[in-house]
Amino acid sequence: MNVIAIAMSAGALALAPSIIPPTPVPSAGRDEAATAISPGEIVAAAPASEWVAIAPEDMLVMTLAPAADGAVREVVIQLMPAPYGAGWVENIRTLARARWYDGIAVTRVQDNYVVQWGDPNAEDEAGAKPLPDGLRTMKEADYVVPFGQTRPRQRVVIMSDPYSDMAFYEAGWPLATKDGSAWPVHCYGMVGVGRGMSPDTGSGAELYTVIGHAPRHLDRNIAVVGRVIEGIEHLSSLPRGTGPLGFYEDPAQNVPIASIRIASDLPESERPRFEYLSTEGPTFDRYVEARTSRRDPFFITPARGIDVCNAPVPVRRVSER
Amino acid sequence: MNVIAIAMSAGALALAPSIIPPTPVPSAGRDEAATAISPGEIVAAAPASEWVAIAPEDMLVMTLAPAADGAVREVVIQLMPAPYGAGWVENIRTLARARWYDGIAVTRVQDNYVVQWGDPNAEDEAGAKPLPDGLRTMKEADYVVPFGQTRPRQRVVIMSDPYSDMAFYEAGWPLATKDGSAWPVHCYGMVGVGRGMSPDTGSGAELYTVIGHAPRHLDRNIAVVGRVIEGIEHLSSLPRGTGPLGFYEDPAQNVPIASIRIASDLPESERPRFEYLSTEGPTFDRYVEARTSRRDPFFITPARGIDVCNAPVPVRRVSER
Repeated sequence: MNVIAIAMSAGALALAPSIIPPTPVPSAGRDEAATAISPGEIVAAAPASEWVAIAPEDMLVMTLAPAADGAVREVVIQLMPAPYGAGWVENIRTLARARWYDGIAVTRVQDNYVVQWGDPNAEDEAGAKPLPDGLRTMKEADYVVPFGQTRPRQRVVIMSDPYSDMAFYEAGWPLATKDGSAWPVHCYGMVGVGRGMSPDTGSGAELYTVIGHAPRHLDRNIAVVGRVIEGIEHLSSLPRGTGPLGFYEDPAQNVPIASIRIASDLPESERPRFEYLSTEGPTFDRYVEARTSRRDPFFITPARGIDVCNAPVPVRRVSER
Repeated sequence: MNVIAIAMSAGALALAPSIIPPTPVPSAGRDEAATAISPGEIVAAAPASEWVAIAPEDMLVMTLAPAADGAVREVVIQLMPAPYGAGWVENIRTLARARWYDGIAVTRVQDNYVVQWGDPNAEDEAGAKPLPDGLRTMKEADYVVPFGQTRPRQRVVIMSDPYSDMAFYEAGWPLATKDGSAWPVHCYGMVGVGRGMSPDTGSGAELYTVIGHAPRHLDRNIAVVGRVIEGIEHLSSLPRGTGPLGFYEDPAQNVPIASIRIASDLPESERPRFEYLSTEGPTFDRYVEARTSRRDPFFITPARGIDVCNAPVPVRRVSER
């Protein structure tokens, strides 16, 4: 048993879209008694009280240059709350408010790894874009925080994590802990801060998101500062770079970024609204349990195991105002 | 310590491309004593004797319709050796030899999940492509094989796997075991057989590959029959489908597949040649150990842990004949 839940309660059930395996074809003689509702159905049944609004100052709206067919390509990123990634997140707000990101580009797309964006001329001293004042320099110790610094009322815990003593969720984020430290984990869609060989070289001017299997070896080695909550397909489906590390070889392949704005700096009518499912409520607990042992109709053999990146925290866009 | 190696020996070291984190920038004062060569460098130093040729009858060459710019898009898939996926692999050879796959299409691209291809008209009884004779019907029990049925001389074992008692590598493939059974695991790039709700519905006519975080909950629930060893970017960078489950809503979005051939059926001059790094040799053991605790210069804190999908078996194209 990999999941220990510290809170438990019931909830009404309803039908909803879910993450389902290939080829949904009518059933032919499966054991009905063995089946149950899917994780997506559990989430859809969560009461409104378990959905937590994401503050506009915690969201970035990244607008890529329009696609070849003119389509708008917008990516929404949720920034991590303090204490996780705090110094870097502040730098990112500083850079966004200085409009420093406007006109930079996606320069690297490495299959099963990362999409990265920054100043295409960063390594050319003469041509590099000057950084704004007020950026903090972070250090090695900032990649982790003391475990237990924040205390959610309840926690879903995943005991079997090859990369830590325990993975857990707190305030809507996947985290791991070992040796008294806690840190955010590199799951698909998480956003991190590119850096050079020295731990203090990542300012937040160069960011990446994970587009493949969780590169958990990066945990505690690079700052995780957020996650893509909408539009990751605009990044994950970009052509792969053919240069070393997946960098685009020809600058003409770079994908220009028109702007990156903090949602709270946008006119209110343009602000996206998102909510995440509380990781401290009973529904999240049931969701992780259901993902741990899938019993919805397609499944024959429930895994009875889960890894933290295979139980992503549900996030939804709120369309009505 | 997550890796137990049953064989160990030394090997010469050389420099080679590797899987390295973002932003390779000159070092600034890292502890040189703490650093070591990268997993990629270890692999590059493997003697020729540790590379195993992939038999031409175990490779599929899938040719997509040319890209908009006319570029050739070829994907090479390695099929699993018996006993894993055996019945399905035989069906796939039958379908390929009947040229049944020619003219089917990629119909589904779901972000962080799978790319799937098959007959676009499969669910239209009148329009569906008739299947060739001689296909075997597989059953639930075929999703696993008895553990220990094959006996490699040495094994690299990963003890910490949330989805099994133990993950291991055998004859070049990542596997897991529990309750006396063993099965291939759903890592990035693995190829599986789409099926309906009933376990016996997957013939091999509909296939998928993983393009996101390992969906290990599918292990033992769908047949894994191979892996993409070249050209996955032609699939993983396709536009995501906007219909339910990532299916393309408009048939015009489907990506036609010109042909799928067994490499041994191609003229010898057109056959691709590939090798995998023996998982029973000393280099693979050192490679997994190095990926478990990265000590190459970029890293501050070695993970001291690994998951089986984060240590993919190295495969290389052999260009000279």
